[in-house]
Amino acid sequence: MRDSALEFLAGAGHNTLESDLYRMGWNPVVTAEDYAHDSAHRLHVATASSTALAGGTIAADIAAEQDKVRRADAVVLQFPLWWFSMPAIMKGWVDRVFVEGFGYGIRKAEGGTRRYGDGLMAGTRALVVTSMGGSEHTVSARGINGSLDELLFPIQHGFFWYTGMAVLPPVLIPSADRMTEDGYAAAEAHLQARLGTLFSDEPIPYRHQSNGQYDRNFVLRSPYAVGEEGLRVHTAPPSHAAQSSA
Amino acid sequence: MRDSALEFLAGAGHNTLESDLYRMGWNPVVTAEDYAHDSAHRLHVATASSTALAGGTIAADIAAEQDKVRRADAVVLQFPLWWFSMPAIMKGWVDRVFVEGFGYGIRKAEGGTRRYGDGLMAGTRALVVTSMGGSEHTVSARGINGSLDELLFPIQHGFFWYTGMAVLPPVLIPSADRMTEDGYAAAEAHLQARLGTLFSDEPIPYRHQSNGQYDRNFVLRSPYAVGEEGLRVHTAPPSHAAQSSA
Repeated sequence: MRDSALEFLAGAGHNTLESDLYRMGWNPVVTAEDYAHDSAHRLHVATASSTALAGGTIAADIAAEQDKVRRADAVVLQFPLWWFSMPAIMKGWVDRVFVEGFGYGIRKAEGGTRRYGDGLMAGTRALVVTSMGGSEHTVSARGINGSLDELLFPIQHGFFWYTGMAVLPPVLIPSADRMTEDGYAAAEAHLQARLGTLFSDEPIPYRHQSNGQYDRNFVLRSPYAVGEEGLRVHTAPPSHAAQSSA
Repeated sequence: MRDSALEFLAGAGHNTLESDLYRMGWNPVVTAEDYAHDSAHRLHVATASSTALAGGTIAADIAAEQDKVRRADAVVLQFPLWWFSMPAIMKGWVDRVFVEGFGYGIRKAEGGTRRYGDGLMAGTRALVVTSMGGSEHTVSARGINGSLDELLFPIQHGFFWYTGMAVLPPVLIPSADRMTEDGYAAAEAHLQARLGTLFSDEPIPYRHQSNGQYDRNFVLRSPYAVGEEGLRVHTAPPSHAAQSSA
């Protein structure tokens, strides 16, 4: 699927930058060594990371990935769903690359912090492509694993949207453990179709932190998603939330 | 907080088995080497892991952690919330330890698979203890990060409950980046109080896969959580779901 996607994107005239984490031998564990940290002092991860980033002393493998992200118009994370999240090696790509001053803690000149729809990644599109052993029914609106959009909320809203990326609906490859030749061909065609509209698909309408819908405690104000609560309220209508409360 | 918790549990007469993943130098990355896999054949992670588990050839560090879990009456995962999930090193503890035949793929003699409220970990209690930089408002029912119970659904329902563990409401240590002495004392007292009721607190009433509430596609049947959808429907009333639909 990865090879097919890269070939399709190249054929469509896009330049691609790949990070094949297993092949790279990516280290997923945050340590003080990433930040040239003086071990005589207690490690505060956020502060140490932003200091190293600003001073140009952050670990070379992190800097290289940050450079790829800076150059990207779209970020596609492709992974098998393991325990309903990313495999550890990819979680450690997020943990190590998106340090303070890059993924979070981006101050505005006028005060406040850029996040949730704003940040250094504003203008970048983001897409999850994930395979799972279970059927699509298990991640449907009343499926036992929870609806896919809510199950992926920590990744799609908590990571992508937090850093400013515009999040496209995910591509799911279900029943991957029982994949047939026909099923594979259909999945490949589906992925290519979605990559073909990578720059025209409508992003998930998550609410922006900065447009007055949240109060000073970052709680959604009462005129929005009236009477609703939970993850769904952070997607603006027309949406899942609007449909289910109708 | 960790030291204080261990001391409290010892004082209450419990035996504790600790896995300090950073100190152990835990490897979070699943590789073929975990399973004594013949590299001449394509690696199917699930099959290779269950074969190695059954044959006693699974990597020694995995076997040691599985032994701790087997002996445990309660599993407590304590971690800082990084990008709204576990740090990679802990995700890799889940990925590597809970292989097929241990965490999933547990067949019943009469057919079917034990999961969601049943499995090898049935009878074990489970608790998340997590700290975050943001305030508790941000993970409240309408907070921008989503309600804590839904944000932690992939861990609490997708991992703990899937393997059969009874899941206790999480312990949250908010505003950890701005912690005061008084705030720390209060957080420590709160954690100790929760550990004091580790074996008497009422678990989150997630629905069992096996008691007829789900259809053959693992979709919740229509008499349950009528008109509702999303993660909330998998918790039985009296619950968040019941309250919000009232």
